[in-house]
Amino acid sequence: MIITHDIRLSRIVSGTWKNTLLVAFTCSMSYFVYWYFIQYHFEMPSIIPTILGTALAFFIGFNNNQAYDRWWEARKIWGVLVNSSRTWARNVIHLPSATDKISGSNLELMKEYAVKRHIAFLYALKENLRGTKDEEYKKYLIQSDLDIIKNESNKHNAILSLQTTELKSWKRDGLIDGFEFLELNGEITRFCDEMGKSERIKNTVFPTTYNYYTKGFIWLFNIAFTLAVAPNVGWRAIIFATVIGYVFHTIHFIGHSIVDPFEPIPTGIPLDQITRTIEINLLEMIREEHIPAPVSPVNDEYVM
Amino acid sequence: MIITHDIRLSRIVSGTWKNTLLVAFTCSMSYFVYWYFIQYHFEMPSIIPTILGTALAFFIGFNNNQAYDRWWEARKIWGVLVNSSRTWARNVIHLPSATDKISGSNLELMKEYAVKRHIAFLYALKENLRGTKDEEYKKYLIQSDLDIIKNESNKHNAILSLQTTELKSWKRDGLIDGFEFLELNGEITRFCDEMGKSERIKNTVFPTTYNYYTKGFIWLFNIAFTLAVAPNVGWRAIIFATVIGYVFHTIHFIGHSIVDPFEPIPTGIPLDQITRTIEINLLEMIREEHIPAPVSPVNDEYVM
Amino acid sequence: MIITHDIRLSRIVSGTWKNTLLVAFTCSMSYFVYWYFIQYHFEMPSIIPTILGTALAFFIGFNNNQAYDRWWEARKIWGVLVNSSRTWARNVIHLPSATDKISGSNLELMKEYAVKRHIAFLYALKENLRGTKDEEYKKYLIQSDLDIIKNESNKHNAILSLQTTELKSWKRDGLIDGFEFLELNGEITRFCDEMGKSERIKNTVFPTTYNYYTKGFIWLFNIAFTLAVAPNVGWRAIIFATVIGYVFHTIHFIGHSIVDPFEPIPTGIPLDQITRTIEINLLEMIREEHIPAPVSPVNDEYVM
Amino acid sequence: MIITHDIRLSRIVSGTWKNTLLVAFTCSMSYFVYWYFIQYHFEMPSIIPTILGTALAFFIGFNNNQAYDRWWEARKIWGVLVNSSRTWARNVIHLPSATDKISGSNLELMKEYAVKRHIAFLYALKENLRGTKDEEYKKYLIQSDLDIIKNESNKHNAILSLQTTELKSWKRDGLIDGFEFLELNGEITRFCDEMGKSERIKNTVFPTTYNYYTKGFIWLFNIAFTLAVAPNVGWRAIIFATVIGYVFHTIHFIGHSIVDPFEPIPTGIPLDQITRTIEINLLEMIREEHIPAPVSPVNDEYVM
Amino acid sequence: MIITHDIRLSRIVSGTWKNTLLVAFTCSMSYFVYWYFIQYHFEMPSIIPTILGTALAFFIGFNNNQAYDRWWEARKIWGVLVNSSRTWARNVIHLPSATDKISGSNLELMKEYAVKRHIAFLYALKENLRGTKDEEYKKYLIQSDLDIIKNESNKHNAILSLQTTELKSWKRDGLIDGFEFLELNGEITRFCDEMGKSERIKNTVFPTTYNYYTKGFIWLFNIAFTLAVAPNVGWRAIIFATVIGYVFHTIHFIGHSIVDPFEPIPTGIPLDQITRTIEINLLEMIREEHIPAPVSPVNDEYVM
Repeated sequence: MIITHDIRLSRIVSGTWKNTLLVAFTCSMSYFVYWYFIQYHFEMPSIIPTILGTALAFFIGFNNNQAYDRWWEARKIWGVLVNSSRTWARNVIHLPSATDKISGSNLELMKEYAVKRHIAFLYALKENLRGTKDEEYKKYLIQSDLDIIKNESNKHNAILSLQTTELKSWKRDGLIDGFEFLELNGEITRFCDEMGKSERIKNTVFPTTYNYYTKGFIWLFNIAFTLAVAPNVGWRAIIFATVIGYVFHTIHFIGHSIVDPFEPIPTGIPLDQITRTIEINLLEMIREEHIPAPVSPVNDEYVM
Repeated sequence: MIITHDIRLSRIVSGTWKNTLLVAFTCSMSYFVYWYFIQYHFEMPSIIPTILGTALAFFIGFNNNQAYDRWWEARKIWGVLVNSSRTWARNVIHLPSATDKISGSNLELMKEYAVKRHIAFLYALKENLRGTKDEEYKKYLIQSDLDIIKNESNKHNAILSLQTTELKSWKRDGLIDGFEFLELNGEITRFCDEMGKSERIKNTVFPTTYNYYTKGFIWLFNIAFTLAVAPNVGWRAIIFATVIGYVFHTIHFIGHSIVDPFEPIPTGIPLDQITRTIEINLLEMIREEHIPAPVSPVNDEYVM
Repeated sequence: MIITHDIRLSRIVSGTWKNTLLVAFTCSMSYFVYWYFIQYHFEMPSIIPTILGTALAFFIGFNNNQAYDRWWEARKIWGVLVNSSRTWARNVIHLPSATDKISGSNLELMKEYAVKRHIAFLYALKENLRGTKDEEYKKYLIQSDLDIIKNESNKHNAILSLQTTELKSWKRDGLIDGFEFLELNGEITRFCDEMGKSERIKNTVFPTTYNYYTKGFIWLFNIAFTLAVAPNVGWRAIIFATVIGYVFHTIHFIGHSIVDPFEPIPTGIPLDQITRTIEINLLEMIREEHIPAPVSPVNDEYVM
Repeated sequence: MIITHDIRLSRIVSGTWKNTLLVAFTCSMSYFVYWYFIQYHFEMPSIIPTILGTALAFFIGFNNNQAYDRWWEARKIWGVLVNSSRTWARNVIHLPSATDKISGSNLELMKEYAVKRHIAFLYALKENLRGTKDEEYKKYLIQSDLDIIKNESNKHNAILSLQTTELKSWKRDGLIDGFEFLELNGEITRFCDEMGKSERIKNTVFPTTYNYYTKGFIWLFNIAFTLAVAPNVGWRAIIFATVIGYVFHTIHFIGHSIVDPFEPIPTGIPLDQITRTIEINLLEMIREEHIPAPVSPVNDEYVM
Repeated sequence: MIITHDIRLSRIVSGTWKNTLLVAFTCSMSYFVYWYFIQYHFEMPSIIPTILGTALAFFIGFNNNQAYDRWWEARKIWGVLVNSSRTWARNVIHLPSATDKISGSNLELMKEYAVKRHIAFLYALKENLRGTKDEEYKKYLIQSDLDIIKNESNKHNAILSLQTTELKSWKRDGLIDGFEFLELNGEITRFCDEMGKSERIKNTVFPTTYNYYTKGFIWLFNIAFTLAVAPNVGWRAIIFATVIGYVFHTIHFIGHSIVDPFEPIPTGIPLDQITRTIEINLLEMIREEHIPAPVSPVNDEYVM
């Protein structure tokens, strides 16, 4: 998530210079064609770039709107994970009652570990979405749990199963009753739902045809535009067409930079920051002594 | 779901060449009319193609937006099926408790079959939506279940009934209590809902009038456009009008290719891939030994 | 729901010919005014029809988008009725347990009738939405129930009350416990909700001002357009203006044909077909012998 | 809710004539300025009204879309109130069982009053939203209840509290068990939610800046338009500009007339009609003898 | 929330004068460039500002639509908090039953404090969203609770934990049963959800690229516009371009003023007013004697 309001020029240039060069080259070639083959034969009517502009306007709006919807839905999903994580911790800490067999510090340890295992779930999910291999989640799991999930391909799903096993044993041992079970198991179902929604956004490629044709139509538009204004402004058509082409490519690039919101890029959803926020909240709730610091922005420019 | 960012030229051409030829023919005829009947009498004002372009812009936006909404809703429905399938398996595996009569490997077998029967449900639903007759679902059902659903016209619905029967018998036998019953039966209701939503999208024809008139207005636009630019550019009007017509037909074609997202086409929802993903997840959860491989993309171009 | 992709010319003409004649007349009158009063005094600037076109573009988009939303919401509501009907039947058939007093074929008959009474509910609701008086629902009700609802103005609501009475008696007699009651009563609440949503769409008139002004502005646009192109194209302005007017009226007509989706019209929601589909599903689930045939399309053109 | 398709001219004129006069005056002044100060110095380029038209098109769409969303959400909220009211009555009538202490006509009276108190809730809410002081709700409340809520500033909220008290006493006295309590209390929570949603729409002023600037930009547009067409059409610019200005003001006025849907205006939500419909439904359900007549339209033009 | 329909000129000027001056300067410089370098060489074709206007129209719509969505979602969240707060109070007051140990005024005090602690939660949340440090919430908490949350970084979350502790003790002591626990704990989960949604909107920076490029493209548009109209209108191009630039900057400014709806600004969500409304409602429900007055508008212009 970009947090600065002054976007660094280097970031803009690095994302668009290739396209801009290509646009400038296309416009120059179009002008060359105009000069040698067209100028004495006919004049390109301006209705052609105008109509192509209509088609482009649709593509611009469509791509950006859908990209923003994906980005905002991704943010909402992780917002629900924040809320449900707190509800999970709150209920895990306060609902189970001491029994003859389990009480005092034993009970406290059980509760604390159910909270820590949830932090492990979040780290495992984050690493899966980001495609990293830090295995940070391991530090919140005890060895016996690590052994159980060792061979699972989907670590975060496996951790949820461990939580359900725990919950069932609490119910069997009388730490929680049926009503409390409903509340706690409901949260696990919600975690599973939001986890799946994240994977859906990550794994569904935005229809590539829209991206492909936007580029194609900008290219076509640029040629038509150069030919249409050349009779009035001569060689300056190259400059004007390049500027206009740059504008359209930039709008396209802005939308493209948020269409895959879980990628580890500055414009993506700040999963590191959100996960850390939940981690701090939950560790405070179980009165842990060593609380990690919040994630700092990079160069005061963005947070990951 | 198309996964390549370089769309193959053959795919584009194969989808649009008929229309493009028709467009070229229409434009040529229009130019012919212009040449013999119009040029010495009057000049077509450019406001006519411009106004028709406004009408087309609405149709372009409307058709594509609604098509994308259908496609994305279809993807969401199968995302919910992924999530609920995991929740079903997790709860089926961990909630039932051993009783005097049913315990040990008997209990394990019962749980495993409840998971496998769910995979059969997904395959039956997929085949119904895709209109295929592979009957892959049969390999996950035992003979007695196959006999029961033999005469049902709606196999996937019949399998859900089998699951409810199973659940009721678990409750009667004391394997699960009322609260656990609520959680498990709730998931069956969700399967039934998402199944019905899939059928709704499959069975509801997108209002054909929108498709029909879009084509008609592009055709009208093409004629008006050819006549309007012919006085300036002569016979080249045919070329320009064909290019512009191609652009509009292509945009229309893109939207049309995702409006029926459950069809077995490269641009549809990858039901094969999603079903296999759930299958792998669920078989891992019941510690099955032979896990099938994920679905591979075709030509690195798309997944079904 | 129109299912053919080749819309019959007669359908199009029958819906728009009156408007088209009126448009042609208006354009002719405008040309007459141009010829006798305007041509030697001033020239209508083309910015006037262009700006009016902007206003119309908004109306076109707005009316069609909202009409489609009503149509699609109506379809979703009946999709939920499909899903919940299956869930109702599945739970009604499998959840109640035999007791000392009620068991065997008595129990089966009770269950079957609870399913049939639900089919009666759907028929009663459909007839209310369509405004027909076939009273088809009566064939699924026994005489004592018919007597109870005889004087009710809202038959479908009265049938839901009968279902709740039934459910309560099952609970009192121990056929179902509290948890099963929750599941079954929850479905009745859902039926009541979707029934009310259908009535909301049926009874809420889409703000008539939008319809009224769209027609008015098309008329104004047509006059301005005729006057603006007449200096260039002479009497042909009448033809061009009529074509453009036809285009706008047609778009308006398309939206208008789906704004009241429960009307018994070819473009509406196919309530006959959906009700029959549920009927078949439910009768199969209770192993009824005589299953009615699905609803056939009319002329291969549409289903009601 | 306006129900007629032929909107009365007087309604249109009465809503817009002030603005139209102001527009005509502005256009006349602009023409005066053109005549004395501009015509021999320069010509206003038509790109200026065109660009301002783009800005206006956005405002037109935005205001109308958001106004319609508020109107439709208001209608949906009262649709939910219809549905939940029927569910409340159905459950209140059929769920409570006779006990040793409370049975027969005592029980019937208790149930009937729980339904009537709900009608009182709806009337109290309606009066609050409409800002009327009829206190119609009082006729459905007994004196002891009236005494309790006498000093409350929020009558409808206070009536909901009475319903919860009643429900709790039913539960304590064994008329309903925990499951039935869940169902009935769930409906009260829904009433509270929809009541709050109604108040949210009523109390949230649509951002006044949008309204303010729309008017301002129409005014600016009118001046630019008059100056731009005057060189071609002379004094007739005043007429054309006034017509165009009327069109834009009318569109703005249409949206404005539904932005506050609970106001007692013909274009608002017909709360009188909806409340009466629920009243009739509920009184029929408790077999009341004297059922009031439905609300009639005013002049066959609108229902309140 | 601005409540006046006559926006004060000072408010408008104070928000836009810097930009307007900058626009005027840019336009003057452009005219200078036109005069010395361009006028005898070529004429800027008007298609260039027109096409840039298309790009701007997209940005205008996109920024304003998303900003309004954030603002309206924020309002909805606090609407849910209003509704759930009333439901919390209603259930807290009426559901707990007296037991042998806790009854009479003890019970009343417990209930009242559970309501007051909820008011403290709302004040703590409001202060966090607004970034103020008034610590008004403290006046509704007893000392022992203040001690517990002293070191928590997230006060409002800590208060919710206190509520769950209270609820659990009520359940253990038999004041409420499992069903009542479900209802009450469900509301706490809802508070946690809405609290998290508020934080999501507050903490998620609207993609800064959209803001940044809108400004950039308005600047580019202004230059192109000045150069394009200068040949026709001479030095007056500066005036016209400044007016048009002002219009676009103003639209941008309007959207920008509601994109962060929880900021303590006049255009934000009136958290002070909403919190006070809930406070009054809840204190009335527990029959408190001293009820604070509603929040008054500032200058009859806006409420905070």
